[in-house]
Amino acid sequence: MIKVAVDAMGGDNAPEEIVAGAVMAANTRKDIKILLVGQEERVSAELKKHTYNTDQIEIVNATEVIETEEPPVNAIRKKKDSSIVVGMNMVRRDEADAFVSAGSSGAILVGGQVIVGRIKGVERPPLAPLIPTEKGVSLLIDCGANVDARPSHLVQFAKMGSIYMENVVGIRNPRVAIVNIGAEEEKGNALVKETYPLLRECGDINFTGSIEAREIPHGEADVIVAEAFTGNVILKLYEGVGATLIAKVKAGMMTSLRSKIGALLVKPALKETLKSFDASQYGGAPLLGLNGLVVKTHGNSKRTEVCNSIIQCVTFKEQRINEKMKESLFPKEKEQEER
Amino acid sequence: MIKVAVDAMGGDNAPEEIVAGAVMAANTRKDIKILLVGQEERVSAELKKHTYNTDQIEIVNATEVIETEEPPVNAIRKKKDSSIVVGMNMVRRDEADAFVSAGSSGAILVGGQVIVGRIKGVERPPLAPLIPTEKGVSLLIDCGANVDARPSHLVQFAKMGSIYMENVVGIRNPRVAIVNIGAEEEKGNALVKETYPLLRECGDINFTGSIEAREIPHGEADVIVAEAFTGNVILKLYEGVGATLIAKVKAGMMTSLRSKIGALLVKPALKETLKSFDASQYGGAPLLGLNGLVVKTHGNSKRTEVCNSIIQCVTFKEQRINEKMKESLFPKEKEQEER
Repeated sequence: MIKVAVDAMGGDNAPEEIVAGAVMAANTRKDIKILLVGQEERVSAELKKHTYNTDQIEIVNATEVIETEEPPVNAIRKKKDSSIVVGMNMVRRDEADAFVSAGSSGAILVGGQVIVGRIKGVERPPLAPLIPTEKGVSLLIDCGANVDARPSHLVQFAKMGSIYMENVVGIRNPRVAIVNIGAEEEKGNALVKETYPLLRECGDINFTGSIEAREIPHGEADVIVAEAFTGNVILKLYEGVGATLIAKVKAGMMTSLRSKIGALLVKPALKETLKSFDASQYGGAPLLGLNGLVVKTHGNSKRTEVCNSIIQCVTFKEQRINEKMKESLFPKEKEQEER
Repeated sequence: MIKVAVDAMGGDNAPEEIVAGAVMAANTRKDIKILLVGQEERVSAELKKHTYNTDQIEIVNATEVIETEEPPVNAIRKKKDSSIVVGMNMVRRDEADAFVSAGSSGAILVGGQVIVGRIKGVERPPLAPLIPTEKGVSLLIDCGANVDARPSHLVQFAKMGSIYMENVVGIRNPRVAIVNIGAEEEKGNALVKETYPLLRECGDINFTGSIEAREIPHGEADVIVAEAFTGNVILKLYEGVGATLIAKVKAGMMTSLRSKIGALLVKPALKETLKSFDASQYGGAPLLGLNGLVVKTHGNSKRTEVCNSIIQCVTFKEQRINEKMKESLFPKEKEQEER
């Protein structure tokens, strides 16, 4: 039985969609136990609307709620009875294998580090969302809040990301590339120039070199390594350009009677194709390198995305991702243990 | 009479489209003199296909061509008789006011610095393309090759960009913002945190604070200040996501008979709307802060973009942009001169 704590109070659609997503996950997989963390009365009222195996879902009371706009460090320190702090403490104490939240990104990043804690030797836990491409999805690692990374951090990101893509998403021998402003090794800023040869020397990843931002949507790499500032810009611009273009396409279809009729005919097929350009079916963004798993789902997540994020935690645990990461990151220590 | 040297050999469609664009510009504005730099026989053969005022277009022979894949520093040093080196030397010697090229970005950036030369006191010449937004265009400054910028560079970019947008593109009191991973002043990497207060203190620009990448396509700022690595990622991802989404939309319309019929009806209106999401009508990307003007147009530029880039040089000269930049960047020196 894999235990997943779920933040019932986080995100725009809490608790309704979160609870519905938890029920959906419990009804999909019989080997999950879900701990819904949040204000008991409200969560209970939502839960009563659904049919599920009562052995699989339990409510854990947490009276406080961390709001998106609260300064994260302060919120984690002061709101000891918030759903995020309570849920993360369960992971820390091994009462849960993973924690899923659609709440404040900042609080999740801070809480992951200070409550759940890093795997010994992991310098920084990266936030690694999946982004849609023409061919499927790529893992963009890191999009967190730890900017100004060092080369050694990026090497750890590459290894962790590679293991995640291979074992959770199921891409064999994933291609790992570093975001750069040209394809040649001598191109780039100081960080990229220092990191490039280190990645080339990693025997256990399939490093394919630099990737220019233009090639990312074409799916030219499976694991896209970037410093968090760059990763964050890529992630948000992806969303922004996508939203603007879709709005332009819709507006274009409404400009004449002829195009309006065309729009009616085109709509169903178009909707289906654009759905393939949506990464949420794969779940949320994992915060990797922690003693346990923390998954951040979109603030506007609906039940399906919440359900997928919970099931993603099961795969993570089943595939022993953290153990595999430790083996990849610290092979010498393992050898020493074996002697 | 404003003199514009044009690289007749640069870009995917040279010399045909370049020559056609030069003729188009000469036929649009009677106050331009165009110096077509390139292999005389080939340029002359193209020019013969057109009707134009022969006083306005002249061929300047340059026997060599710099290819896109050549290492730029080497190419500029060795190919003394290339169209880029010859054209830039004309600007340096004041035989031309500006130089327009669709050729190698690297060679144009290097040549701009070492041949044309920087305005005294300008630390780095930024490459500043216009990118399309929902509301029009924004200037993205810097997208060049000078990565790892310092705060003082970014302050100069903000001032130069502001003057360009106000006087060349015609945006009154342009909103200047710095690319960041959050809206608050305390967010960001070391460079942004150091630059932010310096920009806030600039009296002569309309600094509106941070801009997240998600807001760029919405047109939330007119001048978008970024270090070149970040700027380059934004520019290329913009193109990449745009191309992928348009391809998805087209593919979606071809999936069924119903949608194919719809596509035929929708197509003209859609084409028109998407055309508004194309910045090439405003010309190419200026390389600012030089003793003269250098404009880089897309490698795949057709005649209209070449023509617009040439006319952009006229506005630049007429509006005395370089003089205005000097006044904004070095106000004290000006005061001293006046005493």
